[in-house]
Amino acid sequence: MDILLTNDDGIYAKGIAALYQELCAFGNVTVVAPESEQSAVGHAISLNQPLRVRQVTLDGNRPGWAVSGTPADCVKIAIAELLPALPDLVVSGINLGPNVGINVLYSGTVSAATEASILGLRAAAFSLDTYKSAEFTRAATLAGKVLGGLLTWSGWTHEVCLNVNLPDLPPDLVRGVKFTRQDVGPLVEHFERRVDPRERIYYWLAEINNRHAADLSTDFGALQAGYVSITPIHHDLTHYPSLEELLTQSAL
Amino acid sequence: MDILLTNDDGIYAKGIAALYQELCAFGNVTVVAPESEQSAVGHAISLNQPLRVRQVTLDGNRPGWAVSGTPADCVKIAIAELLPALPDLVVSGINLGPNVGINVLYSGTVSAATEASILGLRAAAFSLDTYKSAEFTRAATLAGKVLGGLLTWSGWTHEVCLNVNLPDLPPDLVRGVKFTRQDVGPLVEHFERRVDPRERIYYWLAEINNRHAADLSTDFGALQAGYVSITPIHHDLTHYPSLEELLTQSAL
Repeated sequence: MDILLTNDDGIYAKGIAALYQELCAFGNVTVVAPESEQSAVGHAISLNQPLRVRQVTLDGNRPGWAVSGTPADCVKIAIAELLPALPDLVVSGINLGPNVGINVLYSGTVSAATEASILGLRAAAFSLDTYKSAEFTRAATLAGKVLGGLLTWSGWTHEVCLNVNLPDLPPDLVRGVKFTRQDVGPLVEHFERRVDPRERIYYWLAEINNRHAADLSTDFGALQAGYVSITPIHHDLTHYPSLEELLTQSAL
Repeated sequence: MDILLTNDDGIYAKGIAALYQELCAFGNVTVVAPESEQSAVGHAISLNQPLRVRQVTLDGNRPGWAVSGTPADCVKIAIAELLPALPDLVVSGINLGPNVGINVLYSGTVSAATEASILGLRAAAFSLDTYKSAEFTRAATLAGKVLGGLLTWSGWTHEVCLNVNLPDLPPDLVRGVKFTRQDVGPLVEHFERRVDPRERIYYWLAEINNRHAADLSTDFGALQAGYVSITPIHHDLTHYPSLEELLTQSAL
């Protein structure tokens, strides 16, 4: 199996290194990732700037390509220019920080997997539920176990990509796997208002979290409760119930 | 009615100026938009950089706020810091260029509307089907007519946002309005490989288009055929058919 591995924390991040080691058990892994951190870029692509691609050697002599763009750019250029053939699987991660609820929309990690899905490839994104210096080796082992199971699922076509969130827990405390829907609960967020050295005001988005009673059927709730959360997602944003209703509104 | 108006082409773009004039017939309009062009930023938000906000006076003495961030940032900071009260409607556009098919995912214009929806507000995005110097006054008149109709639809809650694409045609050639689904046909795209003055290679995404037989039930197809396309979209990316299937897979 040929695997393309990318992320949004950048090619030198610990999460991608740990996942690389684990994925080698599944096949031939090529790393094409952003040269610098690209968190919260969402599904951005580079139209107004060209992309630079640099071949690099990572820890342990792993070869890789560093791209001066976003995670979605990395997938596009890997497929169009860098890989000799289409990969069988595209994996993104492991992200430092969860990608659940509304944050899925802001996530570069998830967007890389979605981009692969758009290009007709099976894809999964992996994120770890911590913002601290993380136990990525432990997380990668868990990711490998989850991926091994998912690869046996015949329904995993390129039309659906899998958003996997891993609890930051030792194996015996992980409560299992839950298949979940994306939480759509409101975000609790605020801006900090600060003053710069020249006495001008600036604003910084300080917190962006889902904060409500955790529902185990959602990605947010399952992860909070210590489960691995797996959400099948897709890139058709159409709200079909509204479309059906609109089609009956002859007056509009 | 209080209306927040934003875009991704930047606060000085012609499309937002034309739409402002038109929206004034509907209520009190406040402009909060990126200080520079933000095309194809997708649903990016600024976490690692703070935001600057500058009060500006636009053509015809229109007041506005220029924000050093993405369209989604503009909506967030307008709601959290700049507006005295929640607006009744958030409008994004008019974008220079269509936002149909897969491009909806890359679109800053659409993401501003989606962000409003996430924050619990009714929203619509307007885009014009041309990349050339556009007839924005004509397009804005059409946008106003469409918006007037949509405001009579009781199903338009904050949970669904409306992605409107306008043909670049004189009124008598516009064939009508179609309610559509997002086209998910594959993109035809390629990178141009170029050599810089220092003989280093760089890549530029040259084309990104949906190219297949136009289906009138899709945004892409309806717009191609000369209709106004209106697609109800939402921000729950869950693929429910797959989730149902996964929930029966006890072996995974």
